[in-house]
Amino acid sequence: MDKFLEAAIEEAQKGLDEGGIPIGAVLVIDGKIVGRGHNQRVQKGSAVLHAEMDCLENAERLSAGDYQRATLYSTLSPCDMCSGAILLYGIPKVVIGENQTFCGPEAYVRSRGVEVEVINNPKCRQLMESFIQNNPELWNEDIGV
Amino acid sequence: MDKFLEAAIEEAQKGLDEGGIPIGAVLVIDGKIVGRGHNQRVQKGSAVLHAEMDCLENAERLSAGDYQRATLYSTLSPCDMCSGAILLYGIPKVVIGENQTFCGPEAYVRSRGVEVEVINNPKCRQLMESFIQNNPELWNEDIGV
Repeated sequence: MDKFLEAAIEEAQKGLDEGGIPIGAVLVIDGKIVGRGHNQRVQKGSAVLHAEMDCLENAERLSAGDYQRATLYSTLSPCDMCSGAILLYGIPKVVIGENQTFCGPEAYVRSRGVEVEVINNPKCRQLMESFIQNNPELWNEDIGV
Repeated sequence: MDKFLEAAIEEAQKGLDEGGIPIGAVLVIDGKIVGRGHNQRVQKGSAVLHAEMDCLENAERLSAGDYQRATLYSTLSPCDMCSGAILLYGIPKVVIGENQTFCGPEAYVRSRGVEVEVINNPKCRQLMESFIQNNPELWNEDIGV
């Protein structure tokens, strides 16, 4: 498996082990992971730290030039907010673990010039299917429904 | 002036006084402010806590029903990320202090069913014009250019 997607899955697993929502992300620049993160709704009581946002936050302040060489890996299709963060910073490529349990505005993100690659990895899907089945209310809260 | 926009401007001023980017926001539900925030790029070294995000984070975890009765006030037109957060949570109305110094994807946000009201308040504009003139690199970093 792609080692960066693997790192994102490790983040998702870490979130699950903490009692959180199992979604993970890593930001890669020039072949190196510069930020890692996972959903922090439960752990930090956060409404904004989805995995991708936590990852961008942990990568700390970067220049536009850095973001423009970056690829964001997420175990799950980015929601409207996380897609918006990708657009804000002009991140040119997103690799998505799966988009079967939830699918964000991928067509819109593509229309704004971002390369979107969907892997449909079974481990990513299994993590979410199991979590959603056991915690439907928490999951709905996370996606605003 | 609208007391909620006034509260958002107070947040922007607080950010400026802290040495930060002068953008503020408040979240209002049923006529009460439930969250306040301002841009935290300088203060917390944050890449994700724009004023609107800081405000949503400070409002803590809310139900979908809460967000669906909310209005978000921001002194500046929300960027792609902040607009995405509005869409994620189904916030039905955004009141914008000004969109002259920066304009986010307002047409897209409207096309997704959100009411977008632009005030073009002189104080909001003056805060940003003065800040951008004195700190162009910091401002560019904040909007990913």
